Amino acid sequence: MQFSSSLLENAVTEFAKLPGIGKKTALRMVLHLLKQDSKEVSHFSNVIAKMRSEIKFCHRCFNVADGDICSICSNSMRKQDVICIVESIRDVIAIEGTQQFNGIYHVLGGIISPLDGVGPDQLNIESLLQRVENEQTQELIFALNPNIQGDTTIYYIQKKLQDKAVRVTTIARGIAFGGELEYADEMTLGRSLQNRLPVERYVNGR
Amino acid sequence: MQFSSSLLENAVTEFAKLPGIGKKTALRMVLHLLKQDSKEVSHFSNVIAKMRSEIKFCHRCFNVADGDICSICSNSMRKQDVICIVESIRDVIAIEGTQQFNGIYHVLGGIISPLDGVGPDQLNIESLLQRVENEQTQELIFALNPNIQGDTTIYYIQKKLQDKAVRVTTIARGIAFGGELEYADEMTLGRSLQNRLPVERYVNGR
Repeated sequence: MQFSSSLLENAVTEFAKLPGIGKKTALRMVLHLLKQDSKEVSHFSNVIAKMRSEIKFCHRCFNVADGDICSICSNSMRKQDVICIVESIRDVIAIEGTQQFNGIYHVLGGIISPLDGVGPDQLNIESLLQRVENEQTQELIFALNPNIQGDTTIYYIQKKLQDKAVRVTTIARGIAFGGELEYADEMTLGRSLQNRLPVERYVNGR
Repeated sequence: MQFSSSLLENAVTEFAKLPGIGKKTALRMVLHLLKQDSKEVSHFSNVIAKMRSEIKFCHRCFNVADGDICSICSNSMRKQDVICIVESIRDVIAIEGTQQFNGIYHVLGGIISPLDGVGPDQLNIESLLQRVENEQTQELIFALNPNIQGDTTIYYIQKKLQDKAVRVTTIARGIAFGGELEYADEMTLGRSLQNRLPVERYVNGR
């Protein structure tokens, strides 16, 4: 792509660094900003810069926060003894979107993946064990993506918790709502058979 | 979507204003930036702000430029007497990408579209007529999108040029390379029959 302005070209190059954004989409965004009022664009760039420089991570659960403790941890209406373990901030937002969880979180910051050079030491696992020790946690719910790395991570953490009096669960794997049996992979379908549940529990949703 | 940080939320809201970007994609971008080095993000935001505040439009052809005249107009290797008329900057970039055009441009800044309240006066048409008058232009090539508004714009400008000694052409409309006859609309297929060309010209590409 050839540009007649280096200012335009630099802006397109920056946008094209974002995930899932190619040069054409980047150009579309830049031309959109070019049409906007100068004030609005400077607001856009300020908000981005401020977000990166001022955002903090919760000292307790490693979720994003405006202060030292995130708004979920500091909410006294939430059960402080049920911890949901997730890989990333994105998963916190996804689970909050369901409005089905009233406990607190622990963000691992990744999952154990030796092929990518990620071992337990790079993740927030030690701090999780500390929390279970100090906070009289009743239940730990693993909400990790269902794949080999996720299962490895569950296995590793569960081993470390063996002598603790805490209930450890994982979110159900099965056929997604709206999915079709014939297109489900064998692993998922097999597991959903193994972990079948009484119809009255399914109907009542609990 | 619920966020535990207003800084994060503001950034997502800003990204979601961009064309074609929903909340989920915006979140993905923001979390990507959050993982980057603080310096890189501040570079990103500076480049965007600088682009909007410092970019200029060429006094001659209305293309984007770093100075008063764009790099295409000021390039003495290009034919200064062949002007390609396009709707927007995006079209300049598309045509430059073909490397098949060695003249200069005139960016109208839109097309005549009464339904959208865009008349000839809002477009850079007067300046085009001035250029034809002053620059001893030999040929004007219309490269507008093939639709009613594009054709109206061509018709309007051509009327204004009637007493000028300038060749006026338009890019060919026809079946796109890789397209299939059976899926082409009747208008396109009909026109491509009317405007058929000798095979030797097609084979030689001229």
